[in-house]
Amino acid sequence: MSVDERRRVKRLPREVRERQILDAAVRVFSAHGYHNASMDEVSDVAGVSKPMIYAYLGSKEDLFAACIHRESANLLDAVAGGVPLDLPPDMQLWHGLRAFFDYVGEQRASWRVLHRQAISQGGPFSEELLAMRRRAISLVDTLLVRTATKKGLDDNATEALAAALVGAAESLADWWLDHPEVPSKVIASRLMNLAWMGFGDLVEGRVWSPA
Amino acid sequence: MSVDERRRVKRLPREVRERQILDAAVRVFSAHGYHNASMDEVSDVAGVSKPMIYAYLGSKEDLFAACIHRESANLLDAVAGGVPLDLPPDMQLWHGLRAFFDYVGEQRASWRVLHRQAISQGGPFSEELLAMRRRAISLVDTLLVRTATKKGLDDNATEALAAALVGAAESLADWWLDHPEVPSKVIASRLMNLAWMGFGDLVEGRVWSPA
Repeated sequence: MSVDERRRVKRLPREVRERQILDAAVRVFSAHGYHNASMDEVSDVAGVSKPMIYAYLGSKEDLFAACIHRESANLLDAVAGGVPLDLPPDMQLWHGLRAFFDYVGEQRASWRVLHRQAISQGGPFSEELLAMRRRAISLVDTLLVRTATKKGLDDNATEALAAALVGAAESLADWWLDHPEVPSKVIASRLMNLAWMGFGDLVEGRVWSPA
Repeated sequence: MSVDERRRVKRLPREVRERQILDAAVRVFSAHGYHNASMDEVSDVAGVSKPMIYAYLGSKEDLFAACIHRESANLLDAVAGGVPLDLPPDMQLWHGLRAFFDYVGEQRASWRVLHRQAISQGGPFSEELLAMRRRAISLVDTLLVRTATKKGLDDNATEALAAALVGAAESLADWWLDHPEVPSKVIASRLMNLAWMGFGDLVEGRVWSPA
């Protein structure tokens, strides 16, 4: 590291630099895939030298794992923060779904990194993804399912339903990558109707809409 | 290959040998994971020599891809074959879910190979898995969703709902790997209730049961 570079490091706190690097890395990994992404491009996009990237966040593999970790934490925060705990269960579910699909829609690059790239790389990345899915199931179990089924279902059923709901949301978000013309609210409404009303009602033409 | 081995090859048709090899490979990959699985063990379990395995099915990577391909085709066949087209939509969905979870329950080894191993390996294997998911969505779209929503929903919504349903089933099957004590019928019933009744009814204590 040159003396000039050391000076620049001093100017910005480490968290800011790390955020710049991770923002750039998500864009580059998302655009080119893990294998074809180059640390040179991450360095260019971030405006941070390669030696500094290695010093702060380690190898390309470490950097990719850090991206998955940060992006999954952000996604879960967005969903958890989007659920108004004082509203009735259907509105909690609705706002949770809106928050999820809004996040995925606004952060398509991030979702691509999180999901498709991590799955297609396998290894430690898929472990990180599975861990995120477990946290998501636990979040949904806590936030939505136990509330929504307080009256109806026994406790040990709720984790299974949370797993089903998380899988449905994940699969629908993946489907959405190939159908970007569908608005976020419409996607959220599709899942809301399936999850809240069920096919039984949909067959009869009964649909859900926000109060 | 020795003269003795050549004689043994002659005795059984190629399809039978290939089936023996694939059956053995699914067991070995499932037990040890892709990296730790050895072609020696596949050869032992199958009772087929290593050179013959390479001649018939190629490298270890080719063999794993062939396992995923065969197992996913079997799974989809089991589901498609389990849906009685002359019954009402709810019973079609119920039988489809029963067929899916019965298959996964009886073929845990196969599902592990299909799903967890393929995801954790990434690369061409995850492509095979994504292709299977697309076929599953298309199957569900054709078999169940269009029938179930004939009256209620417009056509372009059904593929999204099929994607959600496939994701829910996949995620629940994955959850089930960690909760093997839950019977297949109970798992199928959980998803049936979520998909057919929806949380809205479950909250009120209304559940679905076969006619």
